[in-house]
Amino acid sequence: MGEFDLIARHFSRPAQSDSVEVGIGDDAAVLRPTPSASLVVSTDTLVEGRHFRSGVDPEALGWKAAMVNLSDIAAMGGFPRWLTLALTLPEADDHWVAGLAAGFRAAATSCQAELVGGDITRGPLTIGVTALGECLDAPLTRSAARLGDVLVLTGATGGAAAALALLESVTEEDIPPSLLHRLDRPVARVAAGRAARGLAHAAIDVSDGLLADLRHVLDASGVGARLNANALTPDTDLQAAATRTGRAAAQWMWAGGDDYELLVAVPPTHARTLLEIWREQGLQPIEIGRVTEASGLHWAGDAPTMDPVSSGYQHF
Amino acid sequence: MGEFDLIARHFSRPAQSDSVEVGIGDDAAVLRPTPSASLVVSTDTLVEGRHFRSGVDPEALGWKAAMVNLSDIAAMGGFPRWLTLALTLPEADDHWVAGLAAGFRAAATSCQAELVGGDITRGPLTIGVTALGECLDAPLTRSAARLGDVLVLTGATGGAAAALALLESVTEEDIPPSLLHRLDRPVARVAAGRAARGLAHAAIDVSDGLLADLRHVLDASGVGARLNANALTPDTDLQAAATRTGRAAAQWMWAGGDDYELLVAVPPTHARTLLEIWREQGLQPIEIGRVTEASGLHWAGDAPTMDPVSSGYQHF
Repeated sequence: MGEFDLIARHFSRPAQSDSVEVGIGDDAAVLRPTPSASLVVSTDTLVEGRHFRSGVDPEALGWKAAMVNLSDIAAMGGFPRWLTLALTLPEADDHWVAGLAAGFRAAATSCQAELVGGDITRGPLTIGVTALGECLDAPLTRSAARLGDVLVLTGATGGAAAALALLESVTEEDIPPSLLHRLDRPVARVAAGRAARGLAHAAIDVSDGLLADLRHVLDASGVGARLNANALTPDTDLQAAATRTGRAAAQWMWAGGDDYELLVAVPPTHARTLLEIWREQGLQPIEIGRVTEASGLHWAGDAPTMDPVSSGYQHF
Repeated sequence: MGEFDLIARHFSRPAQSDSVEVGIGDDAAVLRPTPSASLVVSTDTLVEGRHFRSGVDPEALGWKAAMVNLSDIAAMGGFPRWLTLALTLPEADDHWVAGLAAGFRAAATSCQAELVGGDITRGPLTIGVTALGECLDAPLTRSAARLGDVLVLTGATGGAAAALALLESVTEEDIPPSLLHRLDRPVARVAAGRAARGLAHAAIDVSDGLLADLRHVLDASGVGARLNANALTPDTDLQAAATRTGRAAAQWMWAGGDDYELLVAVPPTHARTLLEIWREQGLQPIEIGRVTEASGLHWAGDAPTMDPVSSGYQHF
């Protein structure tokens, strides 16, 4: 089975959206942008053994590959529109590709985005995705946090890192579903990001770890932050995982990667409104601190107990 | 040196175009599309050992990675605007990344496109590129070839395949520059593709091999073709390479991959005009045959002598 058969069987579908003039199967896709919208573009690659474990369920992998990119669109306050998928596979496994395509499509559809093109080639298993979104007004950037802003998360962090740590010693079946779900089935906070436009100053998605991503915002904005170490408290499953592995739950919550919650810097005057909207969306937002003039990170009270070496995902 | 250092050193540059509202360094790039233009999107991945040889000059590799994607935009008659680059590297080699970035940027600039985002991650060497272009009128697709159309190439094919064959037995230094250049420094036929809008019915870029790509056009258009086997004649370097390797030059010209010339189906009434424009652009276009009602490929006179097994690049 060749590249073109795999694409025809698992990816070629009639276009769902009027915006897709030419979809999968030509030299390029042709799309009709929304008049006067800006275009929001993000690209991320998942590599086997680095971003996902060998043997992971292909449907979960397809879901996650789409979601981590849609999450970047969400972090800009954009609405997702189109996706491309560049699949590099060691072999043409029809069943595996079917699962990946199904998961990818489910994630895309849940965010009202559509797969419009890509390629399949032979090589070490890597999945490259480009997400295209649109924004009708000013996007949320990393660089606009201001003194006094409240730092708020769309939800709890640490679950994905805890699941990853548990996988070192136990099988998938022995991991609490609430944690494994955070690792394998992240959900891009699209509605939350869109609600934050006009209310929040800055936003980022927490993919590299909360502190590492917060630092990106602070550095880009030229400000610092004072954090409340008690803001994040482990739930039962997270605490049990920490006990079981002898790790600190705080490490996972403050520095674990793969969370895909949004972190925003919102002025105090708008924080209550945003929190209300997010709760109405079914989220459980968490206020973790404030933006300060002094650069760097400071803790109100004691800093959480963490391993200082691995405070953030390092790509090299 | 981490991902962010590599990006800052080699990829982060002030935006060249007014269309780039947010460039490299945020969750996503924010771009300002041209009003009422359609968006043309293509994605391709290059894998070490499959699409390029280990140890290839990183600058040539960066050039080619950009060009093969810009070529897809050219084949739609689009004008290139923006590029993203997803780089997976076994190690953070500063010098190597500098070369790759320089070659990528040179290719992008030569087509008036700009790198606006991407990521760098660790893993087996693969280079994923997404090219975004725009089209103010109807794009050229694969599916619009019609009975009687003349099939015309923007230039000679086979040089890249000949260089690849020579590399099996000789070193780079012993390969005629004209052939090695075709393999390592392809040029996207952007101006040629744009000139073909309104004149040609269908277009494709010759990346998988002339016959394989022609078949894509014929299948998508529901037509066949009669080809003139004598239309393609090897130049001195190509003939010498065939003699040296004991291969058939016709195999390289008709079935070799990596050419990145455009193949168009143009009605006879417009063929002369298009050929004139292309010659004014410095190209040496070649008429290879006609679109016929009968499906499949037919040869006017004898078919060229080729290896029937490998008539087109197979990704698996």
